[in-house]
Amino acid sequence: MNVAVIGLGLIGGSLLRALAAHGHRVTGYDAGAETREAARALARPAPGDRTTGDAWHVAESVAEAVAGTEVAVLAVPLPAIPDVLAGLDGYPGLITDVTSVKGPVRDLLGDRRFVGGHPMAGKESSGFPATDPRLFDGCAWVLCLEPDDADPADWLALARLFTRIGARVVPVTAAEHDRAVAAISHVPHLLAAALSGVLEGNPLAGTLAAGSFRDGTRVAATRPELIAAMCGGNAPAVRRVLAGVIDDLESFARELELGDPIAALTAGLRRPSELRRAWPPGPGEPVEVPAEVEALLALGRAGGWVSAINDGTVAGLRPETDRNRS
Amino acid sequence: MNVAVIGLGLIGGSLLRALAAHGHRVTGYDAGAETREAARALARPAPGDRTTGDAWHVAESVAEAVAGTEVAVLAVPLPAIPDVLAGLDGYPGLITDVTSVKGPVRDLLGDRRFVGGHPMAGKESSGFPATDPRLFDGCAWVLCLEPDDADPADWLALARLFTRIGARVVPVTAAEHDRAVAAISHVPHLLAAALSGVLEGNPLAGTLAAGSFRDGTRVAATRPELIAAMCGGNAPAVRRVLAGVIDDLESFARELELGDPIAALTAGLRRPSELRRAWPPGPGEPVEVPAEVEALLALGRAGGWVSAINDGTVAGLRPETDRNRS
Repeated sequence: MNVAVIGLGLIGGSLLRALAAHGHRVTGYDAGAETREAARALARPAPGDRTTGDAWHVAESVAEAVAGTEVAVLAVPLPAIPDVLAGLDGYPGLITDVTSVKGPVRDLLGDRRFVGGHPMAGKESSGFPATDPRLFDGCAWVLCLEPDDADPADWLALARLFTRIGARVVPVTAAEHDRAVAAISHVPHLLAAALSGVLEGNPLAGTLAAGSFRDGTRVAATRPELIAAMCGGNAPAVRRVLAGVIDDLESFARELELGDPIAALTAGLRRPSELRRAWPPGPGEPVEVPAEVEALLALGRAGGWVSAINDGTVAGLRPETDRNRS
Repeated sequence: MNVAVIGLGLIGGSLLRALAAHGHRVTGYDAGAETREAARALARPAPGDRTTGDAWHVAESVAEAVAGTEVAVLAVPLPAIPDVLAGLDGYPGLITDVTSVKGPVRDLLGDRRFVGGHPMAGKESSGFPATDPRLFDGCAWVLCLEPDDADPADWLALARLFTRIGARVVPVTAAEHDRAVAAISHVPHLLAAALSGVLEGNPLAGTLAAGSFRDGTRVAATRPELIAAMCGGNAPAVRRVLAGVIDDLESFARELELGDPIAALTAGLRRPSELRRAWPPGPGEPVEVPAEVEALLALGRAGGWVSAINDGTVAGLRPETDRNRS
């Protein structure tokens, strides 16, 4: 395929490299001149290399990057999307994105030809120097579908593109996505921040802190602006999940006030411990489902994902239903 | 020195091996016959080894293990301590322990010759096969002191023993210890459990969950009985810290309801993020303090630790006071 990638940070740059490695014709663009230069330098064949040209092209504008492409991937943060869209007026190809909230992006895109996406790939480091063409191997990549979508053809085209670079493509609605990432990504950042607060005025705690504190707070070192943008951009879902977590913490606090706090807390901790020990889900059972919106959404809702697009059907994997297997 | 280690799990077994490696005469005991046999097997010189005897001795009872020793380390869980103490009646040596709450153990020990201890060393794995004689390298090892202690001689003897196997010995009162570990160890386990609860009835969340969920919930896989025993044995301090964390989470929830949730949350996250980025404390400034109770407690309260015991003074390190250095 002929693909444009707008934004060459960790996700966009890695995607540019992964798609090129799989034989696609790829053009990249980044608003930063230095990033463009780094991407261009890496595209050049090594001296003595027998390949005939650059591994990918780096354009000088959004319009130049998307000209003649079938797919444009917007790999820029949510606040930068409106600007990029201005450069896509009249673009006839298919647009997708990689941001971590899907409802608001859908609203921004209006009636353009668009399928929202979100690869669940992250690293501590960011920017083009951190890119890795194997970043998406085995990574869950959400692609959004809605029950009222008439035809999943565009969805299937992107699913084919991303499964072939190793991703597990997860079909979900924008609302389901936003609720799920509130639970497994946005709220964890808020818990990490609240836990970091225990160091305030307590250097002794900082000296004694070890593994459980380190892991429980790791993501609190993320820039506050980034955490706030993720959570604030998904505020209704984050508030709902956060309220549930606070309820559970208050239950633990009540159990600690009972006559036998150890027995009460043991009972209260049993189910969360089971849930954590059953995670991550096992390899799952292979399934084949029709290439239709409802069947795909049912697969995603069951925790399954798509591994390959065939003719008229979709091959996938679905976790076993007994989540308490050891 | 002549040291007995009672309980040969991860901590006790590692200590047995570390002390033997540093030339001490060590005797171990464990209530499990299989563990005693494993410890005995590892003590034997390898065939062709020119050493003249076993690296340590493994006794068949607590009384046999402590006979003739100067120090007895109780490396058993809190509920097992009363039983072990029954075997120590009339023991003239110094007793220390390694459990994670210090107030309740102090109460159990009554007026015996006792200094409470707690090495902040843990691993996912447990039991004698997981032991490692280098487990305490650079690890914070709390040794308790109280302002009304007349003479820190016993404290100094243990501090010498443990600094020499690489530990950073932290002088604190039992109450200060219990408050600090509530913050950096016990409450983190409760947060991890509450976060694991988001998987309930949500297989999609389990499929999308990645790094921030994995790290934020890692310790929730610990056996519920162990988490409950830690938290329930330190209930007043855990309840206080937990209430503070819930307050912070409720602040975040309120910020998410404001007109500009991203700006409000950015402001609310700034301080926790600074605290986390300033952790762990740097190497610190070398200090020398008198070998006196008040001076030692002041060092611990400032986040410092003891690195060596000299004649009449103690060498240590204290973190720089500006906790916001980059």
